Amino acid sequence: MKAFVFHGPGQSSWDEVPEPSVKDGADVIVRVDSVTICGTDLHILKGDLPEVVPGTVLGHEAVGEVVETGGDVRTVRPGDRVLVSCVSACGRCRFCREARYGQCLGGGGWVLGHTIDGTQAEYVRVPFADLSVHPLPGALDSQDAVLLADILPTAYEVGVLNGHVRPGDTVVVVGVGPIGLAAVATARLFAPGRVIAVDLAPSRLEVASRLGADAVANAAEDPGHLVEDLTGGLGADVAIEAVGLPETFELCTRVVRPGGHVANVGVHGKPAVLHLEDLWIRDVTITTGLVDTFSTPMLTDMTAARRLPTSSLVTHSFELDRMEEAYDVFSTAGSGALKVVLERPAA
Amino acid sequence: MKAFVFHGPGQSSWDEVPEPSVKDGADVIVRVDSVTICGTDLHILKGDLPEVVPGTVLGHEAVGEVVETGGDVRTVRPGDRVLVSCVSACGRCRFCREARYGQCLGGGGWVLGHTIDGTQAEYVRVPFADLSVHPLPGALDSQDAVLLADILPTAYEVGVLNGHVRPGDTVVVVGVGPIGLAAVATARLFAPGRVIAVDLAPSRLEVASRLGADAVANAAEDPGHLVEDLTGGLGADVAIEAVGLPETFELCTRVVRPGGHVANVGVHGKPAVLHLEDLWIRDVTITTGLVDTFSTPMLTDMTAARRLPTSSLVTHSFELDRMEEAYDVFSTAGSGALKVVLERPAA
Amino acid sequence: MKAFVFHGPGQSSWDEVPEPSVKDGADVIVRVDSVTICGTDLHILKGDLPEVVPGTVLGHEAVGEVVETGGDVRTVRPGDRVLVSCVSACGRCRFCREARYGQCLGGGGWVLGHTIDGTQAEYVRVPFADLSVHPLPGALDSQDAVLLADILPTAYEVGVLNGHVRPGDTVVVVGVGPIGLAAVATARLFAPGRVIAVDLAPSRLEVASRLGADAVANAAEDPGHLVEDLTGGLGADVAIEAVGLPETFELCTRVVRPGGHVANVGVHGKPAVLHLEDLWIRDVTITTGLVDTFSTPMLTDMTAARRLPTSSLVTHSFELDRMEEAYDVFSTAGSGALKVVLERPAA
Amino acid sequence: MKAFVFHGPGQSSWDEVPEPSVKDGADVIVRVDSVTICGTDLHILKGDLPEVVPGTVLGHEAVGEVVETGGDVRTVRPGDRVLVSCVSACGRCRFCREARYGQCLGGGGWVLGHTIDGTQAEYVRVPFADLSVHPLPGALDSQDAVLLADILPTAYEVGVLNGHVRPGDTVVVVGVGPIGLAAVATARLFAPGRVIAVDLAPSRLEVASRLGADAVANAAEDPGHLVEDLTGGLGADVAIEAVGLPETFELCTRVVRPGGHVANVGVHGKPAVLHLEDLWIRDVTITTGLVDTFSTPMLTDMTAARRLPTSSLVTHSFELDRMEEAYDVFSTAGSGALKVVLERPAA
Repeated sequence: MKAFVFHGPGQSSWDEVPEPSVKDGADVIVRVDSVTICGTDLHILKGDLPEVVPGTVLGHEAVGEVVETGGDVRTVRPGDRVLVSCVSACGRCRFCREARYGQCLGGGGWVLGHTIDGTQAEYVRVPFADLSVHPLPGALDSQDAVLLADILPTAYEVGVLNGHVRPGDTVVVVGVGPIGLAAVATARLFAPGRVIAVDLAPSRLEVASRLGADAVANAAEDPGHLVEDLTGGLGADVAIEAVGLPETFELCTRVVRPGGHVANVGVHGKPAVLHLEDLWIRDVTITTGLVDTFSTPMLTDMTAARRLPTSSLVTHSFELDRMEEAYDVFSTAGSGALKVVLERPAA
Repeated sequence: MKAFVFHGPGQSSWDEVPEPSVKDGADVIVRVDSVTICGTDLHILKGDLPEVVPGTVLGHEAVGEVVETGGDVRTVRPGDRVLVSCVSACGRCRFCREARYGQCLGGGGWVLGHTIDGTQAEYVRVPFADLSVHPLPGALDSQDAVLLADILPTAYEVGVLNGHVRPGDTVVVVGVGPIGLAAVATARLFAPGRVIAVDLAPSRLEVASRLGADAVANAAEDPGHLVEDLTGGLGADVAIEAVGLPETFELCTRVVRPGGHVANVGVHGKPAVLHLEDLWIRDVTITTGLVDTFSTPMLTDMTAARRLPTSSLVTHSFELDRMEEAYDVFSTAGSGALKVVLERPAA
Repeated sequence: MKAFVFHGPGQSSWDEVPEPSVKDGADVIVRVDSVTICGTDLHILKGDLPEVVPGTVLGHEAVGEVVETGGDVRTVRPGDRVLVSCVSACGRCRFCREARYGQCLGGGGWVLGHTIDGTQAEYVRVPFADLSVHPLPGALDSQDAVLLADILPTAYEVGVLNGHVRPGDTVVVVGVGPIGLAAVATARLFAPGRVIAVDLAPSRLEVASRLGADAVANAAEDPGHLVEDLTGGLGADVAIEAVGLPETFELCTRVVRPGGHVANVGVHGKPAVLHLEDLWIRDVTITTGLVDTFSTPMLTDMTAARRLPTSSLVTHSFELDRMEEAYDVFSTAGSGALKVVLERPAA
Repeated sequence: MKAFVFHGPGQSSWDEVPEPSVKDGADVIVRVDSVTICGTDLHILKGDLPEVVPGTVLGHEAVGEVVETGGDVRTVRPGDRVLVSCVSACGRCRFCREARYGQCLGGGGWVLGHTIDGTQAEYVRVPFADLSVHPLPGALDSQDAVLLADILPTAYEVGVLNGHVRPGDTVVVVGVGPIGLAAVATARLFAPGRVIAVDLAPSRLEVASRLGADAVANAAEDPGHLVEDLTGGLGADVAIEAVGLPETFELCTRVVRPGGHVANVGVHGKPAVLHLEDLWIRDVTITTGLVDTFSTPMLTDMTAARRLPTSSLVTHSFELDRMEEAYDVFSTAGSGALKVVLERPAA
């Protein structure tokens, strides 16, 4: 079969590789129907995640059809249409027992396209299938569904829930790429008083407005000022970091009010400065996290009921074997690309 | 009357000053019977808190007798023996309505010995008395009670509660001066599996052991190693920072387990480095805070019932007018001083 | 002045009574501009609340203008337009310090029109004004604002928050009179998957649909069946009781799923049967409560921003001196009355 | 092998039955070393649980050695010494994903000795072994460990955690049989101010005192009075029902303070009266529940560290084949029996 293989920093290609097969009773093999590219995949290509070894098939998000199941799999069968979640879960370790699947100690967590072969391929082996794939309702089309593999639960759990968004709150989302936009959309499930989107790209701020941001601020023009104005000088109840840079994190700690929450969602490659000389007295809570995907079933229902504006997040779609071109578009600043979806050609 | 007055960085003295009087209907005047010195007072003397203006009487902890009350005061009367809490509360602002008194927007918060005259004096004016002083049970002697003004509620609320200590947890307390020792003692209210005390001073580690620390580690000898050993490599459930230095904060973020809590209690004068490149994926929660004192009544009952080991925390006591000597002892490394209490001489 | 006076069970009239005056430094006198009648007032008239003594002016909801303030009042001034909340709060007792104002031990709680004279009058004295009246934004008209005195915070706090409504939940509201309709509306702040309204009156079910109920069920036609069908047999995540009868409470305990919440909002005059022989094993949480009004500022902002459908809740309005007629309409089954608002005639 | 078989109401015997064998890949077979009898077993014998069919082997608590494992079992091996928990968990259903194992929809929950053969036998088949048995530390002897199968986690999760016990609280435990005594002991993990034990049997009240109850009250002598006296008339913060009768439940709802928690642990066969005419206004939270056993690992560590007084709970021990005699002792009022443990004779 064909798959997108990482060959070391700066090197990757759409290669012929062996088809995966069931290696463990809890595995399933899924034929990939829709798959997408994540900002994290670009980090891997740059060499930022040295634990990814050359030869690995990338990708951790997909929708597809189960074609084979191991002997212990109880909840899905060949022929089922499923979501392949970015997080797998052994279901037995202490973290899985707390539904903290992202921290699985038993061989799960984020493994697909990271420590084992991933979803940017014609077929993918998914370990611990019972807790790692999710049956999909027929009403949900695959382009929408694939957003449930990572960005919607990540934005919701690591941004909105960790950030403790409550009715009436002022929520600042710093960075409105796909994950930040998903944070804008899922924050609205808690009726915040006001969502303020911050980004450098006017085009992204426009999309944020369409998705329900009440105010937008260009990151270059002192967004802290706008937050102060809108909150009577107090600051935001919640600041969600969705970029992964020291400056954007530090901006979050500056705009949050006493007693407020900073929820970091961004993937960071460098340390940030934490201004404890200001913050020690301010009752601030800062959280980090990998998605656990416990919210995936609820978000799936919400998406199927058209209560989350998923379609605005997909800007480009390609046939699966145009993966390299899709990567080019996705990684080109100015392309306007948000999520890029690749689909198996109709037979 | 006599009072300990800040005259600018490096300058202070036990001076004759005018007695305070009721200026607002919510005020009380308290005759100080016991008062103590806080590490924060030393920061002020060094000039680290520029908002403290020369001429201010220092001190934010005391036990004494109400001698006069403003017309709106409803809960105490002249003759009542009370605790003067480090935090005052207007009771009306949005933060007071959430019992987040430390962030009071209505003129309270930490004001005594900070923005108004404090308790290191023969008499002190306490604003918003109904929410700022606490009647004391007769069974509680003043030397014990004065610890309820700041260190016990601070350690409990900002360290133990913010850190979410739960039965069975491994709790690391970094820094076992008075506040860290109070954290060791109050953490035990939640039956942690194991409390590990970290400090540079062997004498303080000894006191920590007496107060219930199950293991101690010299800060100079890689305490992270001990935490790893004791937790099967996972890390601590809770790390409480009780020093106020970048290195001790960073140590906390290194020893905490995925999904764990870092509760900062220390007063910081400099930024720390936050290693988001490691932490972004680890589900860590970091909190900062000023005490709100909502727990003061409960801690008072516990102390009166001899369920908190307060007496071990007071190492020196002086008559009130030996304030300058008390400061010398308290600020001398190697004096073995923990809390230093000054008491009004018996008539 | 004129006021609506309770003269004992079955007896009441719009009488000439003395104007109230400030009796305590924390009091304000408010000129009533808008006032409404609560189902609880009808209970008083029937004699169900024997603690209400003859001679009491009824009413615990109003909007008006402050005309006089006691010496300790700090947050409002004569001329301010305010909401008079159904709950007063001393701000000093242990319950007020937890923002559990409804349980105030210091002379507050629900006192207006209950243990002291209330708001169905030209003027009303409000004790503990700083925590008992709320300044109103100009944008909010009085007919909408008066719903913030009781039904909106009661439905939100005692129904929606106690019931722990979460995104995606199935919420059953049993009884869609004014308070149940307010529960339907405020539940939507948490993006439930589905709100099911239950009532005997088709007209009320129609209003519920307009306010956002996704399904409605006639109470006479086995609503449990509909809940079962819609939840795959599992039951509702949250059941909110908004009637105050044993049968409606018992219905709530029947339709709730294992692990779900029953939030009682109704005022009950009789005991209910609790089927512990079924419930002991089902992980059910049942809550009761009086409103604390901590959410009033947030709900005020939401109402001012037109994000709560208040106008649908007011069906009738009268000039203030037609109080007796308003009571007749409000208490007549079949009048279609929801909230009945009385307004001071324009000068 | 031999096993204790239910033959219908009033009929049971220690019979020869076929040995169990692995029927599913997730099963293990455990050789029973220690087993105990639960009050619930007596209910079954009386016919109170009609879902238990004649022919069922009773018992849902044991310690033993794994002798065979199905092909999907990953966490235990033959030879491992394990705790057989009263609750099994499929690990895949919506409730298991929330760690609400007691409500498992996938074939788990309380099944042993209820809907499948149980532990009062020489061997027992345990389904879903990875989440249903727990490896035991060597330091823990079997007589202590068997209490971890049901009564310790039940008392802790359903009583203490559901009841929200907090430092300083007044906790009333109504009924101090084995489960109530376990509630007294585990409540102490949260440093309550005062635990009050209520029972009819003076001998049980004596044990409660030894286990740390601060006050005891005979149920026949108006225990509500004592609670009132000790709490200044306010009532208890938490009332834990550990009997299973309408009167004891109703007592709990009478002694709880406004804003307090009633945690029902008892197994009920009849409805109770819920006095909503008093309770509607009192902010009371009532919970029911079956244990989920998520706390079993923590309680195991605490027991191994001798921080829970397990030995006081076992009053009698027998060799395994004296099961019928053990039932006689356990069911005889006045025998003084708390937990009765049966042990496999040494080879």
